[in-house]
Amino acid sequence: MAALDDPCQGLPDELLEKTDVLIWWGHMAHGEVSDELVEKIRQRVYAGKTGLIVLHSGHHSKVFKQVVGTTGNLSWGRDQKEVVWNLMPSHPIAAGIPEHFTLDLEELYCEPFYIPQPDALVFGSWYEDGFIFRSGVCFLRGLGKVFYFQPGHEFDRSFYNPYVQRIIKNAVYWVKPADVGYTVPEGAPNVTFKVTDEFN
Amino acid sequence: MAALDDPCQGLPDELLEKTDVLIWWGHMAHGEVSDELVEKIRQRVYAGKTGLIVLHSGHHSKVFKQVVGTTGNLSWGRDQKEVVWNLMPSHPIAAGIPEHFTLDLEELYCEPFYIPQPDALVFGSWYEDGFIFRSGVCFLRGLGKVFYFQPGHEFDRSFYNPYVQRIIKNAVYWVKPADVGYTVPEGAPNVTFKVTDEFN
Amino acid sequence: MAALDDPCQGLPDELLEKTDVLIWWGHMAHGEVSDELVEKIRQRVYAGKTGLIVLHSGHHSKVFKQVVGTTGNLSWGRDQKEVVWNLMPSHPIAAGIPEHFTLDLEELYCEPFYIPQPDALVFGSWYEDGFIFRSGVCFLRGLGKVFYFQPGHEFDRSFYNPYVQRIIKNAVYWVKPADVGYTVPEGAPNVTFKVTDEFN
Amino acid sequence: MAALDDPCQGLPDELLEKTDVLIWWGHMAHGEVSDELVEKIRQRVYAGKTGLIVLHSGHHSKVFKQVVGTTGNLSWGRDQKEVVWNLMPSHPIAAGIPEHFTLDLEELYCEPFYIPQPDALVFGSWYEDGFIFRSGVCFLRGLGKVFYFQPGHEFDRSFYNPYVQRIIKNAVYWVKPADVGYTVPEGAPNVTFKVTDEFN
Repeated sequence: MAALDDPCQGLPDELLEKTDVLIWWGHMAHGEVSDELVEKIRQRVYAGKTGLIVLHSGHHSKVFKQVVGTTGNLSWGRDQKEVVWNLMPSHPIAAGIPEHFTLDLEELYCEPFYIPQPDALVFGSWYEDGFIFRSGVCFLRGLGKVFYFQPGHEFDRSFYNPYVQRIIKNAVYWVKPADVGYTVPEGAPNVTFKVTDEFN
Repeated sequence: MAALDDPCQGLPDELLEKTDVLIWWGHMAHGEVSDELVEKIRQRVYAGKTGLIVLHSGHHSKVFKQVVGTTGNLSWGRDQKEVVWNLMPSHPIAAGIPEHFTLDLEELYCEPFYIPQPDALVFGSWYEDGFIFRSGVCFLRGLGKVFYFQPGHEFDRSFYNPYVQRIIKNAVYWVKPADVGYTVPEGAPNVTFKVTDEFN
Repeated sequence: MAALDDPCQGLPDELLEKTDVLIWWGHMAHGEVSDELVEKIRQRVYAGKTGLIVLHSGHHSKVFKQVVGTTGNLSWGRDQKEVVWNLMPSHPIAAGIPEHFTLDLEELYCEPFYIPQPDALVFGSWYEDGFIFRSGVCFLRGLGKVFYFQPGHEFDRSFYNPYVQRIIKNAVYWVKPADVGYTVPEGAPNVTFKVTDEFN
Repeated sequence: MAALDDPCQGLPDELLEKTDVLIWWGHMAHGEVSDELVEKIRQRVYAGKTGLIVLHSGHHSKVFKQVVGTTGNLSWGRDQKEVVWNLMPSHPIAAGIPEHFTLDLEELYCEPFYIPQPDALVFGSWYEDGFIFRSGVCFLRGLGKVFYFQPGHEFDRSFYNPYVQRIIKNAVYWVKPADVGYTVPEGAPNVTFKVTDEFN
């Protein structure tokens, strides 16, 4: 657990460099996170060193917007009933999750959500007042993986829901660094060999 | 307009070969459409000669299932209020369509919809009883294009809705045959030249 | 190991029903595989009960064409040098695979390959005579997963290459049945409840 | 035509606000483009007001990296023969383009190219020395469209090739602003109505 008021905004280099999976939640103070820290996280995600899970209001965090390439814009409204639907039951993040589950009270987040087409659309949500939302979406960026999940308003109890907990746990395993079979170079290296020379 | 009881099930070869865009609607008699006709349509779509629009209950037509590669399975229920949300406002099929529009009464079609990940998810729907549906989806298959759209139950009035009409019209332009820059060979031809010989 | 000349073409129901992952290789006799067997396999893949790996000439098998929704067409030519490039080093199927590896002699398979856009393009190949090919591609179909991989001509030695072996092994883990969290119904069930009744 | 040494780096606000399609070429001085200008362009692309075409070395421009969400990293090498293959002949950007065309001399750009999975992979390239590259790729970002195309090294003559010219022209039509059917709000507006109130 790291917080904005901690030294180095909670993520000094030595901690960030040991972080396999970063779970990001924030509501109002997105602007206070330093551009320098955001850029460090962005590069670690692209390098496949840190997987990123963004929860709820994190859609407007600098980290989400810069890593994914989006304004993160959506519409929002009063707390209400939400039904989370399982759109991709064979996805690792949906393991063990039923066809749908309900959240008695959650902040309304609704379409249009101005994200890029996700690499996987795992969950979609229904709201009492007539709205829907792509509420669980995966993005591949460089060697890294990003999962955004809608529930988690600070006045509601979604994080106590066992399916919400399972989804976040599944996502940790899904976004974690991959077993890349070679050392990925930094920058854009100059190739000075011919692959054709490798043939006997 | 062609119907199942017409000669050749309404699609004799000479008509099919002049068909740029095929709009498919059907509810109960899917099994009566001949496998031979389905295969002809499938090959024309893959060859980019006929674009395919599938409406409403056509999700269970042989044509949709064979062309796209799916069971077409979903759940369904009583007629109710539906809100169609525009998830991809920059897509050609969404041209001129607002953020959302409402259908007072439409048959419930709901998730999980066991389709492949669509190449574009243009519309999503909210239903009164707590369900959602990916209601406007694009598939690229071979050189051809397919658009599936949910509204159109035979007891309801969705086809009179001006936005539904606009979407179908937009889709006709989107699925129509492309300007392919060469003659696509049939089958899997044996290449007997080296591209490397083309360099001077 | 099952062969076309075995009883039930090598896949009697009791064996197919125990098959988690089916690896399909075939070159010339695709037409002899029965439509009934193909349809059984197709339904098992869509139901997420059998994962499917298709090797080399299997691109023209009925199983690949029907499950994925494609003609499987491509061009082919003389055996020559091939370099397999790792386009998605963070994908589970690319685990442990270097930036590229070479195959001294493999049958030319080349673009345009008339497949749907794959859900993941993991490998791409370079050929001596000036051709390229999307040689390792993933498709999600229903609850099932499909991986197609180009190497494996019967006169060449690609299956002895340790990277080819590792990729096929990785693919077995990737296509295997998922941990789906509910019993998927057959067909299109009639929903007779309201999710909205589930809220207290 | 605008250049880095022009006032406002060639893109004063009044010009940018009239720009439907921005074609970006640059090789060495990417770092000199101001962050402020990059952010203005990024927001205009996401808002669907300016389509973006990025040529050749622009893969390392701030604009490409920030808009798409990537390091833009790839490997590069000596000028050599390139064959551009048409992987998606039905895409509007491939209209009128043959199966392949050759460029006698072009700078080597090669895989792995650390981009997100493109929304469409239209062209792929073969290089003499054993390398391949995803050389024509589309990205959807917010309401905007981006096309990256590999050819265009300053010492070569690719921009005189009629197919290269046709592709860039096709891309201009593809990335241009869409006919969005409503006024897209800025930021994340608070929804104070119920869609359910719209039903009679």
